[in-house]
Formats: sequence, C-alpha cells, structure tokens
Amino acid sequence: MTAAIRILGIDPGLRRTGWGLIEVQGNRLGFCASGTVVSDNKLPLSDRLRQLHDGLQKVVGQADPDEAAVELTFVNKDAGATLKLGQARGIALLVPALNGLSVAEYAPNLVKKTVVGTGHADKEQIRMMVKVLMPKATFNSDDAADALAIAICHAQHRNLPALARLAGKGAA
Amino acid sequence: MTAAIRILGIDPGLRRTGWGLIEVQGNRLGFCASGTVVSDNKLPLSDRLRQLHDGLQKVVGQADPDEAAVELTFVNKDAGATLKLGQARGIALLVPALNGLSVAEYAPNLVKKTVVGTGHADKEQIRMMVKVLMPKATFNSDDAADALAIAICHAQHRNLPALARLAGKGAA
Repeated sequence: MTAAIRILGIDPGLRRTGWGLIEVQGNRLGFCASGTVVSDNKLPLSDRLRQLHDGLQKVVGQADPDEAAVELTFVNKDAGATLKLGQARGIALLVPALNGLSVAEYAPNLVKKTVVGTGHADKEQIRMMVKVLMPKATFNSDDAADALAIAICHAQHRNLPALARLAGKGAA
Repeated sequence: MTAAIRILGIDPGLRRTGWGLIEVQGNRLGFCASGTVVSDNKLPLSDRLRQLHDGLQKVVGQADPDEAAVELTFVNKDAGATLKLGQARGIALLVPALNGLSVAEYAPNLVKKTVVGTGHADKEQIRMMVKVLMPKATFNSDDAADALAIAICHAQHRNLPALARLAGKGAA
C-alpha cells in the first residue's frame, strides 16, 4: 500500500489567494480542507503581502502538507496587473519553500485539461468537476475551487518533468 | 537636534536584489552599508525566492533600519519578465513588513530626478551622484548603487503623501 501524500494547491492573487488541501493515496483523491486568504486593499502593499504571508503560513502550519503546487498565471491586459499578481505569487511560492516543501508550478491550461478535460474550461466547469472528483469538497470562493483543481493537477502530474508541466504538455 | 534615521533602500530583481543602508540626520546623509543578494538561477523559483528572503532577512536583522523604500519598476517588454520581477518585488516588500517597518514605494523617474536632477538619468550618472552625495559610499553592483539612490530619494521625500511618490511628482 502506498503512503498517503498531502498536497496543498495555491491560486495566488493580491486580493484573494485560494488554497486547497487534498490527500492522495494511489489513485484515490480525498478532500481535506480549502479556504481563501484575503488582504485588505486599504492597507499599503507591503502590509497586504504580509497578510497573505501570515495567512498562508497559518494554513501550512495547520495543514502539514508534503508538497505544494501553484498556478502559473499570466495577466496580459497590462503590466500593472501582472506586477500585482507577481507580488502575490512571490508570497505563494515563498511560504511553502520557507517550510521546506517542494513547490511545483502548473500552466493554467494543464490544470483545466487535467480536471475538466479541456484547456478552455470556465470557472463553473472547474467547480463542478472538483465536486465530481471529490464529492465531499467544499470551497468558499472560486479561488479556493481553483486551488483544489491545482492540487488535483499536481496529484496526476507530480512525476512529470517540470518543463512539461510549465508548457502544459502531457495532460491526461 | 533631530534624531538620526536609518533608511534601507531595496532595488528588487529575481537574479540580483540590491540593498543600501543610509543614515539621515536633518539634511546630512551618511553611507552605512550596501550589498547585493543573489539567487541561484539553477534552483526552482520557490527556492530562489527563499534565497532572496533569507538574504534580505539577514540584512534587515543586521542593519536594523527604521524605514524601508522599494523602487516601483515596470518591465514593459513582456508579461513573463514583469511577472518575474513582481515575484522578487513581493519578497522585497514583505521582508521589511515582517520586521515591522513601513515600506515606501517610489517611481523610478522620481528616484532619478531626486538624485541626478533629471528623470532620464542612466546607471552611470546614478553611480556618480551617489558618490558625490555620499563620498564614502561603496557598492558592488549597479543594483546596490540603485538601492542607495532609492534610500536617498526616501530621505528627501519621506514626508510627501504616498500618491505623489508613486506618480513621480513633487521631485526636488
């Protein structure tokens, strides 16, 4: 019998960072917990990043995951939005690393392809398939549902080389 | 007599993050230290961000600054470069905040205008003016020199409202 592995998926965003924890044993996926870390947009940027850090630090401390996975999202509409997302993403990658976890990155189309079956799925389809794959799953935001999808994606692809994951190749 | 204030300037970058510490008393600027935190580009991104975090954490611990300032840089050439910079910038803003410091942000043209006198100064002019303003200053990279320029900019503008600093207005 293979040992169970706990995977923390993170969907980073400056305003809302979703997280989802699943347990994987062989082919079996189990929902553990999910949630959303929120930053207060009235505070200075550095304090908002500290809120994300503190929230994720608490999640990692309580969830005790074995591995982490973060979505590699681009925002192409403007450089300012991409910079903002990058700052939040920096924290999402940092906190698991500070806790000694390896952090995998997945292209959004690979996450969608793995969970829904097509690289162009919308948020509603992702929520639905997360519930189909893990009927006990609950989530309080689209970001938390996305984070669970990222964790599921990592469960399927954790033995793939990193480059294939980033390119969105080798999808199920 | 006004109390001396120690300002830490940070010029964030994923490969090299420059830092510069100055002491300000009234109109007098004094150089304290500067340096560069480097991340190993052979490591996964999360580990590189942890290297930046650990390096800056050490700097803040040893330098014991009162306030911090970080440059607000855009990279317009492509979204990938902006995302990378954003991730490093997230760490540069986070570490002072984790240590209870306020973190000011400055538009690049305000930094240049304050230190060199024009918003379009090049790296060589910045290095030269940092040496003119603080003859004892030493730096081991352009990033460290830029970080000292950011600290000098903050010394001049720390009483300006945040919005004017971000817009690059109200320069000396």
